[in-house]
Amino acid sequence: MQDEPEVAVLRVGHRAGRDDRLTTHVGLTARALGADRVLYAGEGESRDARETVEDVTDRFGGPFAVETVDSPNATIRNWEGPVVHLTMYGERVQDVEEEIRAVHDDGPLLVVVGSGKVPFSVYEAADWNVGVTNQPHSEVAALAVFLDRLFDGRELDREWTDAKRRVVPQATGKQVETPEE
Amino acid sequence: MQDEPEVAVLRVGHRAGRDDRLTTHVGLTARALGADRVLYAGEGESRDARETVEDVTDRFGGPFAVETVDSPNATIRNWEGPVVHLTMYGERVQDVEEEIRAVHDDGPLLVVVGSGKVPFSVYEAADWNVGVTNQPHSEVAALAVFLDRLFDGRELDREWTDAKRRVVPQATGKQVETPEE
Repeated sequence: MQDEPEVAVLRVGHRAGRDDRLTTHVGLTARALGADRVLYAGEGESRDARETVEDVTDRFGGPFAVETVDSPNATIRNWEGPVVHLTMYGERVQDVEEEIRAVHDDGPLLVVVGSGKVPFSVYEAADWNVGVTNQPHSEVAALAVFLDRLFDGRELDREWTDAKRRVVPQATGKQVETPEE
Repeated sequence: MQDEPEVAVLRVGHRAGRDDRLTTHVGLTARALGADRVLYAGEGESRDARETVEDVTDRFGGPFAVETVDSPNATIRNWEGPVVHLTMYGERVQDVEEEIRAVHDDGPLLVVVGSGKVPFSVYEAADWNVGVTNQPHSEVAALAVFLDRLFDGRELDREWTDAKRRVVPQATGKQVETPEE
């Protein structure tokens, strides 16, 4: 978020076809819940997800960046700041979140989100392997809870720049504004 | 969760094929993050999701119920307790969560999670339409953040009954126990 150290989300282990919509949801969740960038592996495999997230950013505002990387392993290895890998096998988020919030104040944070099987090298390269519960559920859900706790709810009040559409919260029904340019 | 009023999650608007994995993730997220039941519409359309969630409950424990309903509208209409519909057009979760937590103390809560287009009747029947941000992202992410806030983190400490497998949180690597019967 603006005026805070960067948070980037790296999606690993995408399986073309099978994971398309979940990979899209990872990017949209990263954007909506306060991350600054999503990094997808492989130009071709992630085209659908990339286009959807860019389209949403174009309509509903930013700043939010969508990028592709050739080698997720190299991205993790060369990251200049702490790396958190979300996995059901990791330490309990409620036990480590305070520590992670503290280091994040000093520099950019990379959050790695897998699908299917994640290579053991990712577990080893991460500074924290973190479980949002130690139950099998959803990388999208884990990312959402992690970001909400990392930012302590501040992300819900984030403001958007260059939005062509803005939803006005309603008790019933839908209201969408088109801010003037 | 045990010793608390019931929380059930109703998935509406599932599109066969396209939504299969997201519908599965809705059920797994409901289970992992403290809900007691997931309700899917239509026997046939939700078979994949149902089987996966039942299989996870069988292996990793419960109690957690998976059910199908013929008419989501009837389920909402006849629900004896408050109904929350998660939608990007709704009131801000940070503004209404306290109120919802208060009413939930008294009775069962139904959380409705859509996909694609949700009929206007759902907006009207809900006691609260709630936005986890007013941005387009993911029903799985919205459900996760909503449950984590509803239960105020208690769901992360929930214990499981009849689990055949139990993951032991690890800083690096994977450890799975097989509790003795």
